[in-house]
Amino acid sequence: MKNMKNIQLIISYQGTEYCGWQIQPNGITVQEVITTAISELTGEIVNLIGSGRTDARVHALGQCANFFTASSIPPEQFFRAINTKLPVDIRILSSKECDMDFHSRYNANGKCYLYKIYESNVGSPFNSDLAFHVTQSLDWDAMEEAAGYFIGEHDFKAFMASGSSVKTTVRTIERISFEKKNDLYEMTFKGNGFLYNMVRIMVGTLYEVGSHRLPPRSISGIIQGMDRSKAGITAPAQGLYLKEVFY
Amino acid sequence: MKNMKNIQLIISYQGTEYCGWQIQPNGITVQEVITTAISELTGEIVNLIGSGRTDARVHALGQCANFFTASSIPPEQFFRAINTKLPVDIRILSSKECDMDFHSRYNANGKCYLYKIYESNVGSPFNSDLAFHVTQSLDWDAMEEAAGYFIGEHDFKAFMASGSSVKTTVRTIERISFEKKNDLYEMTFKGNGFLYNMVRIMVGTLYEVGSHRLPPRSISGIIQGMDRSKAGITAPAQGLYLKEVFY
Repeated sequence: MKNMKNIQLIISYQGTEYCGWQIQPNGITVQEVITTAISELTGEIVNLIGSGRTDARVHALGQCANFFTASSIPPEQFFRAINTKLPVDIRILSSKECDMDFHSRYNANGKCYLYKIYESNVGSPFNSDLAFHVTQSLDWDAMEEAAGYFIGEHDFKAFMASGSSVKTTVRTIERISFEKKNDLYEMTFKGNGFLYNMVRIMVGTLYEVGSHRLPPRSISGIIQGMDRSKAGITAPAQGLYLKEVFY
Repeated sequence: MKNMKNIQLIISYQGTEYCGWQIQPNGITVQEVITTAISELTGEIVNLIGSGRTDARVHALGQCANFFTASSIPPEQFFRAINTKLPVDIRILSSKECDMDFHSRYNANGKCYLYKIYESNVGSPFNSDLAFHVTQSLDWDAMEEAAGYFIGEHDFKAFMASGSSVKTTVRTIERISFEKKNDLYEMTFKGNGFLYNMVRIMVGTLYEVGSHRLPPRSISGIIQGMDRSKAGITAPAQGLYLKEVFY
């Protein structure tokens, strides 16, 4: 372990062509592609630890991962070297040396996700893989009101993909903000952690509110009921972006 | 010709996967895909007339095309019907009936193009096909100054791909404007017509100015010299967007 360093990477990727973050036997994943690139550079067997999984077609603006290496490449220059070995839809934005006991997943104490909804009569050829396209006009005021009910510490069991198993389904949502950029609506979710598919189910439920199929105040009862079937659809993967991981 | 209608379409496409607009034997083109879609709908042999070609990987926000049909589909609804037969990277934005003598190419009296340059230390996974990525900082003030020399009526022979043949290489540039959106610079070119590769060579020359390899005032001499080799590079196709066609 002499001269070993722990390198932290900040990573952005367009998830369209990948079967998600985590290495799996049946398709190419972001973790696999980056791991292979680092191994090519260093000649080492690399264990790349991500902050968490992202699903197939989900994007990242600031995924965090770390790995151990004895390479002499300066830590702050590592990202440039890795980028030369990566396809254009994955970019390492920065790299630095971190404490030897830093672990991207265990040390994460919060995350921020972005969800993009494209509201337009006709789809755009430029963002079919980058946003959830809705053709009807959504009631964004009702959606913002509804989002307020998610804020705080709650048991989010109703907003977890059924079949998942975790120790606790209690999570704290710190902030949900809405921003409009022309026809594109961006919703930002900041919290101490998210259950499997939780952001997409929250968005899908807000979408039901925006379509006037659920009143804003119904969110409160759906949370309390802890029944996945009472929440809305799972909004499509291509609208979701892992924006930032907090440590 | 009884009951024949002339239908005008406004079309947006991401050019990444296409060998340009115009039908050709060696690859799939936007014109071919739309022509096939219309033929499937109407059962007719369709001659789709575009305002002009776009090259491989070049995009359109508002390409214009027209075709004749005896179909009973209401002209204003045609775009929706065609969209159901198209891949997501091509969208018809609108359709309407126009005069029987309207011709998308011959009647065009001006065009507007957009060119996007992404200035960033590291590339973005989201726009490698949608902008020209430059890693160095460009001198945008010098580029704006240089762009001023293009305004007006000039012989733009130096800004035409060599080997092209046209009756006249005189064109009028009405306006060139610059807009910055975070790390993305958008340059808009409006003129009465553009020679083959003219926008990309103008951008490539402005890029030389922005990199301080040419002074802004050199543009004037390059125009007068009418020598393609004195102008700058042909900027990459993926940054170019046909924004609007004027009639």
